[in-house]
Amino acid sequence: MIRNNKLKIVNDPIYGFITIPSELVYNLIEHPYFQRLRRISQMGMSYLVYPGAHHTRFHHALGAMFLMQRAVQVLRSKGVEISEIEAQDLYIAILLHDIGHGPFSHALENSIVEGISHEELSLLFMNLLNEEFNGKLEGAIKIFKKECPRKFMHQLVSGQLDMDRLDYLRRDSFYTGVTEGNVSSQRLIAMLDVHNDSLVVEEKGIYSVEKFIVARRFMYWQVYLHKTSLAAEQLVLGVLKRAKDLSLKGEKLPASAALSYFLNKIVHKADFSSETLAVFARLDDVDVLAALKAWEYHNDVVLSQISKMLLHRKLLKVKISNQPFSEEKLKEKRVAFMVKHNLSLEEASYFVFTGEISNQAYRMDKENIFLLKKNGKLKDVAKASDQLNIEALSKTVVKHYLCYPKLE
Amino acid sequence: MIRNNKLKIVNDPIYGFITIPSELVYNLIEHPYFQRLRRISQMGMSYLVYPGAHHTRFHHALGAMFLMQRAVQVLRSKGVEISEIEAQDLYIAILLHDIGHGPFSHALENSIVEGISHEELSLLFMNLLNEEFNGKLEGAIKIFKKECPRKFMHQLVSGQLDMDRLDYLRRDSFYTGVTEGNVSSQRLIAMLDVHNDSLVVEEKGIYSVEKFIVARRFMYWQVYLHKTSLAAEQLVLGVLKRAKDLSLKGEKLPASAALSYFLNKIVHKADFSSETLAVFARLDDVDVLAALKAWEYHNDVVLSQISKMLLHRKLLKVKISNQPFSEEKLKEKRVAFMVKHNLSLEEASYFVFTGEISNQAYRMDKENIFLLKKNGKLKDVAKASDQLNIEALSKTVVKHYLCYPKLE
Amino acid sequence: MIRNNKLKIVNDPIYGFITIPSELVYNLIEHPYFQRLRRISQMGMSYLVYPGAHHTRFHHALGAMFLMQRAVQVLRSKGVEISEIEAQDLYIAILLHDIGHGPFSHALENSIVEGISHEELSLLFMNLLNEEFNGKLEGAIKIFKKECPRKFMHQLVSGQLDMDRLDYLRRDSFYTGVTEGNVSSQRLIAMLDVHNDSLVVEEKGIYSVEKFIVARRFMYWQVYLHKTSLAAEQLVLGVLKRAKDLSLKGEKLPASAALSYFLNKIVHKADFSSETLAVFARLDDVDVLAALKAWEYHNDVVLSQISKMLLHRKLLKVKISNQPFSEEKLKEKRVAFMVKHNLSLEEASYFVFTGEISNQAYRMDKENIFLLKKNGKLKDVAKASDQLNIEALSKTVVKHYLCYPKLE
Amino acid sequence: MIRNNKLKIVNDPIYGFITIPSELVYNLIEHPYFQRLRRISQMGMSYLVYPGAHHTRFHHALGAMFLMQRAVQVLRSKGVEISEIEAQDLYIAILLHDIGHGPFSHALENSIVEGISHEELSLLFMNLLNEEFNGKLEGAIKIFKKECPRKFMHQLVSGQLDMDRLDYLRRDSFYTGVTEGNVSSQRLIAMLDVHNDSLVVEEKGIYSVEKFIVARRFMYWQVYLHKTSLAAEQLVLGVLKRAKDLSLKGEKLPASAALSYFLNKIVHKADFSSETLAVFARLDDVDVLAALKAWEYHNDVVLSQISKMLLHRKLLKVKISNQPFSEEKLKEKRVAFMVKHNLSLEEASYFVFTGEISNQAYRMDKENIFLLKKNGKLKDVAKASDQLNIEALSKTVVKHYLCYPKLE
Repeated sequence: MIRNNKLKIVNDPIYGFITIPSELVYNLIEHPYFQRLRRISQMGMSYLVYPGAHHTRFHHALGAMFLMQRAVQVLRSKGVEISEIEAQDLYIAILLHDIGHGPFSHALENSIVEGISHEELSLLFMNLLNEEFNGKLEGAIKIFKKECPRKFMHQLVSGQLDMDRLDYLRRDSFYTGVTEGNVSSQRLIAMLDVHNDSLVVEEKGIYSVEKFIVARRFMYWQVYLHKTSLAAEQLVLGVLKRAKDLSLKGEKLPASAALSYFLNKIVHKADFSSETLAVFARLDDVDVLAALKAWEYHNDVVLSQISKMLLHRKLLKVKISNQPFSEEKLKEKRVAFMVKHNLSLEEASYFVFTGEISNQAYRMDKENIFLLKKNGKLKDVAKASDQLNIEALSKTVVKHYLCYPKLE
Repeated sequence: MIRNNKLKIVNDPIYGFITIPSELVYNLIEHPYFQRLRRISQMGMSYLVYPGAHHTRFHHALGAMFLMQRAVQVLRSKGVEISEIEAQDLYIAILLHDIGHGPFSHALENSIVEGISHEELSLLFMNLLNEEFNGKLEGAIKIFKKECPRKFMHQLVSGQLDMDRLDYLRRDSFYTGVTEGNVSSQRLIAMLDVHNDSLVVEEKGIYSVEKFIVARRFMYWQVYLHKTSLAAEQLVLGVLKRAKDLSLKGEKLPASAALSYFLNKIVHKADFSSETLAVFARLDDVDVLAALKAWEYHNDVVLSQISKMLLHRKLLKVKISNQPFSEEKLKEKRVAFMVKHNLSLEEASYFVFTGEISNQAYRMDKENIFLLKKNGKLKDVAKASDQLNIEALSKTVVKHYLCYPKLE
Repeated sequence: MIRNNKLKIVNDPIYGFITIPSELVYNLIEHPYFQRLRRISQMGMSYLVYPGAHHTRFHHALGAMFLMQRAVQVLRSKGVEISEIEAQDLYIAILLHDIGHGPFSHALENSIVEGISHEELSLLFMNLLNEEFNGKLEGAIKIFKKECPRKFMHQLVSGQLDMDRLDYLRRDSFYTGVTEGNVSSQRLIAMLDVHNDSLVVEEKGIYSVEKFIVARRFMYWQVYLHKTSLAAEQLVLGVLKRAKDLSLKGEKLPASAALSYFLNKIVHKADFSSETLAVFARLDDVDVLAALKAWEYHNDVVLSQISKMLLHRKLLKVKISNQPFSEEKLKEKRVAFMVKHNLSLEEASYFVFTGEISNQAYRMDKENIFLLKKNGKLKDVAKASDQLNIEALSKTVVKHYLCYPKLE
Repeated sequence: MIRNNKLKIVNDPIYGFITIPSELVYNLIEHPYFQRLRRISQMGMSYLVYPGAHHTRFHHALGAMFLMQRAVQVLRSKGVEISEIEAQDLYIAILLHDIGHGPFSHALENSIVEGISHEELSLLFMNLLNEEFNGKLEGAIKIFKKECPRKFMHQLVSGQLDMDRLDYLRRDSFYTGVTEGNVSSQRLIAMLDVHNDSLVVEEKGIYSVEKFIVARRFMYWQVYLHKTSLAAEQLVLGVLKRAKDLSLKGEKLPASAALSYFLNKIVHKADFSSETLAVFARLDDVDVLAALKAWEYHNDVVLSQISKMLLHRKLLKVKISNQPFSEEKLKEKRVAFMVKHNLSLEEASYFVFTGEISNQAYRMDKENIFLLKKNGKLKDVAKASDQLNIEALSKTVVKHYLCYPKLE
């Protein structure tokens, strides 16, 4: 425990105070890789819809660590033995689980880099930090990689009831002001237990689990997949793709050194040397926003228009449908726009496009949530619910969208 | 508007401030019949489980009126014409909708009086007040009786999304600290509209309605039908029945004048003259609690034991099952208790008994909740939900319970 | 730790969950003397002004115990050694600190019993419980009586920053909806430390302490000494005095056995035998309210009128002044009332009376709050404040009131 | 009223929903000048201390407008006549009151531009928008410039109890999690009235006003002038000064076009042509943060070091004192640092420096807060307080600070 350190307690509007549990954790938080998360928004462009949603991945990671401290406390009180080292491994694993996120993460994963997920990037960062901290992250990495012998530890970090979700649903609900997503994390954690090394929920927690699944579903359709956010995210994806196309063709676009690096070459998973990772570590929301601000004045009309739309919130219209939109309808709208603005069809496709979104409120697979009955038997939550029909909630819902500019 | 009155604004921990909208409403609140509700707990004996749950029907009625003011504001902003008089009728109807509740209401309806519901009693009170206020409650009474030509008005007072529910779910959630029941009343009200004189919800409100239905279901099983509250409520019912039996046999039990009146004669619906109503209006929680405190020392063992159990929170054990408990099991437990405490079988049946509880999260009947689509068509919320399966939620869930004393 | 007990966790709307720390504490909570506190309102008649204020001394005592658990945790983390036994003593001392409260406490102390404070009664109860629990309350009693060798322990139970105040200010603020009284208990507790066995506050806590003192002052003048509550409390005092006078003169008033006991004899401190205490332990708000309901129909006009006023909220008007009201003015109003209602002057004095209220936001005496500076020195908070002028706040403010009936 | 617009209601975590009151207001919000405020943090670098404090001036401006709507509603209900046009003028005046803020505002005012305050810049923007919107902002501008005949209107926008303060104190408290700064805006607004065209507070609001003044003082010393934020703000100021010095000497620093414009020439108030303003309007937090990210790798050690410190949160140590720090002490620390890092004394002065901070919780001048007594007379709040000693709070408190690097 570091007694004299300024940062040993952090104010949090949701939980009150977050305590940094150890010097190692403190030093990881102080590391520039982690401080970078202060400049990566948790909800991307959602603030264009919910003006309060400017909270960061930095804050979320601290919040998830706080919940992990509570979970450890609860499980220990129920007789689950968790050593001090294991507890610290859990704190580090959850703290760093998102460290691989880039700016406007999902946009990035599909434009700037290819074939590598943020989870894989998180692991690369953890390995680097493990070296720097003399192997002290071994345990956390094992948990993260699901190689830890105690299954529940991995489940606390990544599962259907992990501390990640319990924090982000609550935090996103708090900052957007969408109270329906407010999850009673404390109550859910109070009902966790471990049975045969797996994370389970006490039987009487059935209604809380149901409430959690419904709240999660609510947040997806109402917030994360909100039409306006969706349009904004697709536009970020489009503008980065366009920038990369132009760059690869030799055009020299204004951009920070780190962003230029990724615009000017194709980076696959295999290319992620520690040098590439070091450049990636310099990227955050600022690079993308600064680029948009410069590109607003560029003479490529796609680049400048999309930048303007994102900066001044002149977004696309969005239609949602249960059926895919027809090719004809899409083409018709594209051609109209192309003609009106004297663009090529390819250019028009940056402004008129379709796609699909999907969400599955509860995943029915090996990782189901189990209730621990008083007689010691387990029951799948999907079977235990009297009538909420969690099995139905486990179906993936797919919706289709069509984005196009407002008529002017 | 009464400008100089002290009570024109009331502090409310949930909504901030509640404003009394007119002098007539103010005078109704000041009336002893309404002030009586200050002494009737909203949640009966639930405070034995949730120590914060001491809020009253008085407070709930004010809260529901506050929400009605919001609803009128929202509907008017959407072009629904509601005159000043109609608005006041709505405020009065919701304010007085529960005025017929007696102490520990449901217990009472099945022991002290017979064949009359609290809604019928509310109507009796409203008629009395209407006379006293020179017919100014006509409109409110019509709404309450469903005789108002504008259907949505009745639905705002009594329907699946009425202001009563929107307040009590939120208020009970607030005072018990069971956050899962917290309903975003404001958001739901903001999405209300009127179509063909019926109350509807804007299409985008689908997730909020779902959330509301699940929250309601949660509160039922977790709070209102909580095992311990259930046992306490049954004990109140039992002790009152016993007291009435003894009284009718000529035993003179200590009790307030008003309570004695109802213990000493059988009162059916038809017996509710204005005199009887005036006596009923003097009954509240204090009468019952004071009686329990006196009966604790009575020589009838059933009376004294149950009183003691309720006052000192030595409640019964409760088992819940999806199947009814067998007659044999019940009898076996009764006999064991009877023998041990030297009671008659009839006396033992006050301590060992079974029953059933049921809840239906969403009622599928003429009063379904309808969504108003952008194209102006209506869609039943049960059909609109992608996968929550509201139809399933409309099945009535029945559970059985067995109560019996703890082993000593 | 009792693992299988239902009540080991209690829902609390303010702190989330309150955990019962040990079996002994659990058994004390289960004791009828403590359960009685469920029927004693924390704020007396204040619900006539703030309809949410129906919380009880039972709930407050649990809340204060919760804060004590936090304080122990914080102090231990700063190196203050507190044994398991000492911690339990602290929990018990704070849990039982208010167990001697009677119904509408302050009214009672000046009417029904004489010369004995609720603190003295609490001690009597603790001694009784200590016997029943085989001396296990010795430590708690020592702390309560200030005989514990470690001064800070007593200060945590009773001092300017004790857990009692930190809970009741927050709780009363929560239930009344008067947010200005909301004290950040968690932040204040996080800044506690122990120096030379005395409770101190870390230097950087200066603004929080100031905020606490101002919040406390706010609650006094805005809530606890609210004109309407004041009038109500004086009326309770008056009606009990009248009832006692009549009883001592031989009039037989309807009242519960326990209340009759105290109405029919003068009980001084010296009279508090364990028998008397046992009768006192049967008194709670229900006895007084039930009496009011019976007295409403009594033929003594003072008794019946005041009862009616309290039950139907037809309270007195109140004027507040910095100067005492003149004897002439008082007499004039009394005479007018006497004549109008055909009363004696003595009877009129129950309806027209004056008195004074006072509050001292910060007490300057041996028990000042001290800040612990980084250099290890102490500084009186009254001296440390740049300009809030805590010294001024330590002056006792006295105000005078005149109560009289509304003109009819 | 625009009925079909998506943005007519905005979610706000604090007030629930904010309604856009008119089409003109809506169009102003949509304007790029206003959208720019989405990229200007309300609390500058404070998020380095309070990780939740990422809310923007955009959100604050909407919040202040919401409170203005409430204030108009309250005043009208008390008989103050406010026409629809006047109400809209008030909404626009408060909405745009901060539109002239640049990135990290206070730093900017003292480095990039000279002799012009953000209020003056706000006025320049308003004039520009007034032209664009055909003179419809005349009324708002008059209020802002204090030229409106009705004094209270200006006071609602800029005074000791204006909607600006009532929102930012509450909002900053909310997002930092420092609950002591939480101001009950709703209660304060409910007590506003107008007397002789001046804004006054009802007499019974005295404690709320006191509470507000203390909360404001608390936020200053605990949050706005927090040592770490202070050091960060001074470092931003330093790095911008350094950049400007280097630029004026001919060094070509990486920076956005807009930032370069201001780095490469001295801009006084008189220089603010509409062209200059247009460039200023392109500046926001992104420009400064992007510059820091580029300068981190610059070969000027001052530029690169400070950038690194700000980005990776390796801030200076800060000492606070009631007395100024001596020149000797300052020089001594500077020399030590200069020698150790092989810098010039001038360069060292960017890392070791002193300054002063001051705050005045209540301003005693013509703009005092007045209470309206029941007899219609006014009373200065500073005189009305029994003992809080608001006069003392009106003294300006000055503190001195010394910043210097941590020992390595």
